[in-house]
Amino acid sequence: MFEEKFREFESIFYPKSIAVVGASTNEKKVGSLWVKALISAGFEGPIYPIGSHGGTISGLKIFPSLRLIPDEVDYVIVSIPRQSVLELLDDCATRKVKAVQFFTAGFSEMDDLEGRELEEQMLRKARQGNIHIVGPNCAGVYCPENKIPCGPSSEGRIGMSGSVAFVAQSGGIAEKLMQLGIARCINYSKGISFGNGIDLDASDFFQYLAADPKTTVIGAYLEGTRDGHHLLETIKEVAKTKPLVIWKGGRTEIGAQAAMSHTGSLASSAVIWSAMLKQAGAIEVHNLEELTDALLIFQQLGRWKGSNVAIIAGLADGGGGISVSASDACIEGGLKIPPLSEKTNKELTELLGKVGSILHNPIDVSKAAKYGLPTLLQSIELTAQDPVIELVLIQEDMDILLSFFSKEEAEEINDFFISLRNKQTKPLVVVLPPGSAEPERLGIEQKLLKASIPVFPTMERTAKAIVAINEYSDSM
Amino acid sequence: MFEEKFREFESIFYPKSIAVVGASTNEKKVGSLWVKALISAGFEGPIYPIGSHGGTISGLKIFPSLRLIPDEVDYVIVSIPRQSVLELLDDCATRKVKAVQFFTAGFSEMDDLEGRELEEQMLRKARQGNIHIVGPNCAGVYCPENKIPCGPSSEGRIGMSGSVAFVAQSGGIAEKLMQLGIARCINYSKGISFGNGIDLDASDFFQYLAADPKTTVIGAYLEGTRDGHHLLETIKEVAKTKPLVIWKGGRTEIGAQAAMSHTGSLASSAVIWSAMLKQAGAIEVHNLEELTDALLIFQQLGRWKGSNVAIIAGLADGGGGISVSASDACIEGGLKIPPLSEKTNKELTELLGKVGSILHNPIDVSKAAKYGLPTLLQSIELTAQDPVIELVLIQEDMDILLSFFSKEEAEEINDFFISLRNKQTKPLVVVLPPGSAEPERLGIEQKLLKASIPVFPTMERTAKAIVAINEYSDSM
Repeated sequence: MFEEKFREFESIFYPKSIAVVGASTNEKKVGSLWVKALISAGFEGPIYPIGSHGGTISGLKIFPSLRLIPDEVDYVIVSIPRQSVLELLDDCATRKVKAVQFFTAGFSEMDDLEGRELEEQMLRKARQGNIHIVGPNCAGVYCPENKIPCGPSSEGRIGMSGSVAFVAQSGGIAEKLMQLGIARCINYSKGISFGNGIDLDASDFFQYLAADPKTTVIGAYLEGTRDGHHLLETIKEVAKTKPLVIWKGGRTEIGAQAAMSHTGSLASSAVIWSAMLKQAGAIEVHNLEELTDALLIFQQLGRWKGSNVAIIAGLADGGGGISVSASDACIEGGLKIPPLSEKTNKELTELLGKVGSILHNPIDVSKAAKYGLPTLLQSIELTAQDPVIELVLIQEDMDILLSFFSKEEAEEINDFFISLRNKQTKPLVVVLPPGSAEPERLGIEQKLLKASIPVFPTMERTAKAIVAINEYSDSM
Repeated sequence: MFEEKFREFESIFYPKSIAVVGASTNEKKVGSLWVKALISAGFEGPIYPIGSHGGTISGLKIFPSLRLIPDEVDYVIVSIPRQSVLELLDDCATRKVKAVQFFTAGFSEMDDLEGRELEEQMLRKARQGNIHIVGPNCAGVYCPENKIPCGPSSEGRIGMSGSVAFVAQSGGIAEKLMQLGIARCINYSKGISFGNGIDLDASDFFQYLAADPKTTVIGAYLEGTRDGHHLLETIKEVAKTKPLVIWKGGRTEIGAQAAMSHTGSLASSAVIWSAMLKQAGAIEVHNLEELTDALLIFQQLGRWKGSNVAIIAGLADGGGGISVSASDACIEGGLKIPPLSEKTNKELTELLGKVGSILHNPIDVSKAAKYGLPTLLQSIELTAQDPVIELVLIQEDMDILLSFFSKEEAEEINDFFISLRNKQTKPLVVVLPPGSAEPERLGIEQKLLKASIPVFPTMERTAKAIVAINEYSDSM
């Protein structure tokens, strides 16, 4: 499915050469930033800066015109005033450029006729010249595998290559998704921000990513679409092959007005979108946190399904309140917390004794901690082995943990989680709330994430993410 | 109101001397931890460790019995097996101790008759001896002003003294509230965890805190109560004088079962609690994040009221997507985003030009950033001065900010927020989402919090907190 689109778009995500129109010897100009970002990301093909005044930028010769470049150009990144875009498209046609990405803004997102007319003319020229347009008013392509960075201001930062893709109408959201990817080990195959989307829009990229063998899950931030019916049909088809998580921006009237000024998107009501997304088999999320949480859990668990969770709380102390509140959050979020099997319960009681213990599920293991690390780890392993349990949810609080254990012991506990995760097929998820020991918490978070254990800051967000992954499996 | 309770409880929060029963030369025993925590917190009165084997702990003589202490003892912290508590209460009566806090667990939260009967006997002895009991099964008092730390494992950590109080049935939640207080500059006047609450319970502490001139807002984590009617009447009275923010744990059946095992609390349905809290004028929250968010905003804004917010996004770039999504979050959360006055709009347009600008409210100031810092700061100040606006909400993204500005410039921008906050009466709230520049973000967060600017990690949580503060003002 969508194989043709797949081949057609390879030059967008894997261009052999890139020209940057709007570069200059002024290092602060957006075009110059693009050149520097491409170099620092390590893009391996030729990079051709283009700017009317010539000179050099980062050691590269600036060509006065696209027409003067000696070799083939696959892909063009543009940051010039809107008055010059039509002429540039003529040059692109002459040079048989395959796709052009316009950072340039000032089109249909403006409240003027000129901007809208310009877009129409651009589209006409692109069709005539057999050129694809990404944008205008966008940050364009992100492809860690091919060392294409996310936006002009991303110098020095590019994430690891992975299997998660994103489609974002907003360049700012695209950039933040990239940054959160680095922070939370969400590794992207591709990302795209398409702004006003006058030629290629969400539907096109969804189709490409559905066919892309390197992508296993797709996340999207959409503000609007020019063809709702086509988008709906596309989502239906794509969701059959891969989970598609969609965050609709501009759900409210004011949000929609901002979207109109941002990407020229027409609003439609939140209720209609929600119904449409549900019907089409997409998973709806409502903000950046929910979107990245869902992408993280899909990346780590793939097409897992299950709702019987064990909640393990009180790695050192304070497991009582956490047992109560975590249960509330999971049950209200839509998960199940079944009683442990009789066998497990008996073994845990033998290990920990009855006084002051919550051992039904949730399991407060704080008493185990008092007997020492081996007992603590044994009680967690016993719980994880229970056949009733499909997923093990551990709430770990660094503030409390470090009041009872040394840093080395805290590391040891987390190394044990990693070994437990590796020796069984049951997923293990860690809730690691912020507090007053942030450097230590961030260190542990990175360690777990790198070992493919999903980590979330609150139990509510964890439950939502687990429900999202089930929602997809249920719809299949 | 509640003046008598106020005087009666002063010996709980401001004891002149404290005895710790259950100390020993073994530094890891809970009693010994209490002694060390009190010393490291800087408690200035005499501390008397008590343990049958004698010896010393942290340079203090361990008395074999409470009866042998040469001076008066106001307050006793107890961590001994449950079999010994009745005898201890006899000793306390002899020595005219005013209040006893039992860390000791194993009472009504257990599933046995003995535990329940023991509680009844303890209560009888306490009434006869004119002694107050805090607990059992609790972490007891926290009073930064009087250098009493929060729980036995809090050695080396005590927050700043402030005007926020908490009442938590769970010791673990109490400890986490203390830690989050340190992390988020929520400064406590008093905190109390009362566990099974056989003598003093939530109602008593609410009354005390209502009368406490050092407390301006009260937060609570409750799992259950023995006397719902009395609690309801108390909440009604207390909420008339101070905002009372309540998080009910054990809202779900499984959560309630855990609460039964945790603090021996009987469950009642979430719907009944919500209705009751609303009727009584309390503000209901549903998790630790909402509770601390509400306490933070009440601490900083007091009894402020207003729902007309200005959203300022894109301090450097990426303001479009943020404008859209922040609008959705605020409107769905219950705030208003009114258009700016004509005058402000005109001034902003003159300053920034029209192309690519969102200037209606939300206000995307990313174009200002391109003209340099003075223009950026001017555009924010212009917005803040608009008479239509009651609260200024700035979304600041460190990932994006640091792609465009140096660390020094980022500091300068935040110093400007602080000066802006200081020179006008309109509240200023900052949304500072996590990302890949955590050390820098945490530094800026601390700076803003210390300057009394509330900071939240997401727009959703910000909107909820602002709505909470309005809810209270509306009910007055």
